[in-house]
Amino acid sequence: MLSLSVTFNKLSQAYPWIASPLIVLAPMRGIAGPTLAVAVSQAGGLGFIAFTGKNSGLEDLETASQLLRGAKEQDDNSLSGISIGGLLPVGLGFLLWADDLSDAVETVEKYRPCAVWLFAPRGGQEELDQWTLGIRAASPKTQVWIQFGTIGEATAAAGSTSPPDVVVIQGTEAGGHGRAHDGIGTITLLPEAADALRSSGIPIIAAGGIADGRGVVAALSLGASGVAMGTRFLAASEARVSKGYQREIVRVADGAKSTTRTTLYNRLRGTVGWPEEFSPRMVKNRSWGDSQAGVPFDELKRLYDEAGKTGDAGWGPEGRLATYAGAVVGLVHEVEDGKVIVKSVREEAKSITEALSTSF
Amino acid sequence: MLSLSVTFNKLSQAYPWIASPLIVLAPMRGIAGPTLAVAVSQAGGLGFIAFTGKNSGLEDLETASQLLRGAKEQDDNSLSGISIGGLLPVGLGFLLWADDLSDAVETVEKYRPCAVWLFAPRGGQEELDQWTLGIRAASPKTQVWIQFGTIGEATAAAGSTSPPDVVVIQGTEAGGHGRAHDGIGTITLLPEAADALRSSGIPIIAAGGIADGRGVVAALSLGASGVAMGTRFLAASEARVSKGYQREIVRVADGAKSTTRTTLYNRLRGTVGWPEEFSPRMVKNRSWGDSQAGVPFDELKRLYDEAGKTGDAGWGPEGRLATYAGAVVGLVHEVEDGKVIVKSVREEAKSITEALSTSF
Repeated sequence: MLSLSVTFNKLSQAYPWIASPLIVLAPMRGIAGPTLAVAVSQAGGLGFIAFTGKNSGLEDLETASQLLRGAKEQDDNSLSGISIGGLLPVGLGFLLWADDLSDAVETVEKYRPCAVWLFAPRGGQEELDQWTLGIRAASPKTQVWIQFGTIGEATAAAGSTSPPDVVVIQGTEAGGHGRAHDGIGTITLLPEAADALRSSGIPIIAAGGIADGRGVVAALSLGASGVAMGTRFLAASEARVSKGYQREIVRVADGAKSTTRTTLYNRLRGTVGWPEEFSPRMVKNRSWGDSQAGVPFDELKRLYDEAGKTGDAGWGPEGRLATYAGAVVGLVHEVEDGKVIVKSVREEAKSITEALSTSF
Repeated sequence: MLSLSVTFNKLSQAYPWIASPLIVLAPMRGIAGPTLAVAVSQAGGLGFIAFTGKNSGLEDLETASQLLRGAKEQDDNSLSGISIGGLLPVGLGFLLWADDLSDAVETVEKYRPCAVWLFAPRGGQEELDQWTLGIRAASPKTQVWIQFGTIGEATAAAGSTSPPDVVVIQGTEAGGHGRAHDGIGTITLLPEAADALRSSGIPIIAAGGIADGRGVVAALSLGASGVAMGTRFLAASEARVSKGYQREIVRVADGAKSTTRTTLYNRLRGTVGWPEEFSPRMVKNRSWGDSQAGVPFDELKRLYDEAGKTGDAGWGPEGRLATYAGAVVGLVHEVEDGKVIVKSVREEAKSITEALSTSF
């Protein structure tokens, strides 16, 4: 814990524009695009774009480059340049079971993001090693982040021949995909991971259950060097989400009661291929309720597809459409610009830290 | 959050011997007795004795009184007296579904503990109201703490005609009994509870997932005015646990992998009567493994009873005996005196707070 400044310094050497505490935009598939990622980095955070295939991936990185170049030409000093040490100040996130390593290498080689975020291999540590080596060969200065939801996998990676530069530890409160059966909350997973990884010196980014300055200070206390947020950024104005989805994130309260881990919506949407050790946290709506009440899947699917045709009206109290979200959904109350989110969460974390330090 | 000092002051007015941050011994049934509870209070915390019926309850409170009197006669200044404002500086915890209100009233009236901790009614808010009114009639200055694992119940209690003096918010990482199906981790439950209870002004004590100074600072950041620990105190030298059980707490690592919520061990031990919305978090051992492998219950029960005859040898890597424990079990590494635990956790919390305040 006393090494908090040390580990932050390690990160700020790699990402010199970041402010403390570090706020990271998690690479939410289909949702975290270049506009949001650039906004987060410009606010002193680190934005990850979610890779969604070679063509769209290349397009997204090109867009990010242009946005950064545009900002520079407008004398926007929020980042010192479009390229920091030869690297683009945004990251790129991959789902290893879904993405192709050669596509990843091509994109990374061309745009040199400052970091990649690897998650969910089908082939365990061996596949992580292949990706890590492949990325490093393509862009030696690009840092490799790997996300884990178990102590065992995180320590195996740290002790491997190709250890990551940063480990992301994801508690079970997280939205979207995480451990299906063997997850646990951030409040115990994170300190136990910090103990297990201490000797490696690898900085930890906490994910899962963090949506505001309170969660940030909690995560730093528990051993993280920074935090990643997903659900809070679902309510960013730049997020690539339907208005209906976004309104649902703002509307839903009581994260424990309102969300659950289930593969139901993946099946309803036709999302297939996730390794079975993962399942997503979802807002429970009518599809879930009807499923629990015994309505056959074919009927649920028919109703789901019908709801899909109604667009934004497919969400809401009586909605049926998939709403990937973390248990922090009850802490998200408004739509704001990505920069505002990053700055306000950081300021809140600072004021909490000050209040704590004067309280005993 | 800026009201942290305010809410601590509220607590220290009621419990003038406590030091900040407040560390509470959770009233673990059969385990938290007078020796441990007095030690915790003498160290500036607040120890709760778990009530286990009228006769043993009266005996435990008498023992606590004698211990406090003995300490006073020995000029032990760790508490200013055996009675603070007419109240005994230890608390008393009740399981409402199991305990008798008239027994509780008799014990509270005679010994006037500074607080009672109510948990797990079978009759919801109505039963909580009865207990609250009964306790207050018996001992008007005794504060009423009520433990909840859901936002809905906590807000209902806060808005009731007999609101508690303190609310304990229990995350799903907690050991022993908690919400069976609708729990969530402390990192999201606590801030959402804090938001929901803010207007009531009722201080929150966080429970579940806290075993050291890191967890304490996290809980305070998230909105708690103090923390309760159970599992860490299972490794207190004064805890009423078998050596085998205690060694198991120290031995077991990886709380996510090693523990689960299950009623299996209640059934094996013959513990019956818990309302179905609760189940305990347990260390998975051979009883669990065999159960998952399909061994019939009768055979599991026979093997469990045989293991019971071996005493302390019934725990361990190949053990079968019930080991109630939280997901923090991987953070507990040695047996220490209760006072040492309280003081070291408090000091660790302070040093983390200092490190945080200088890091950004």
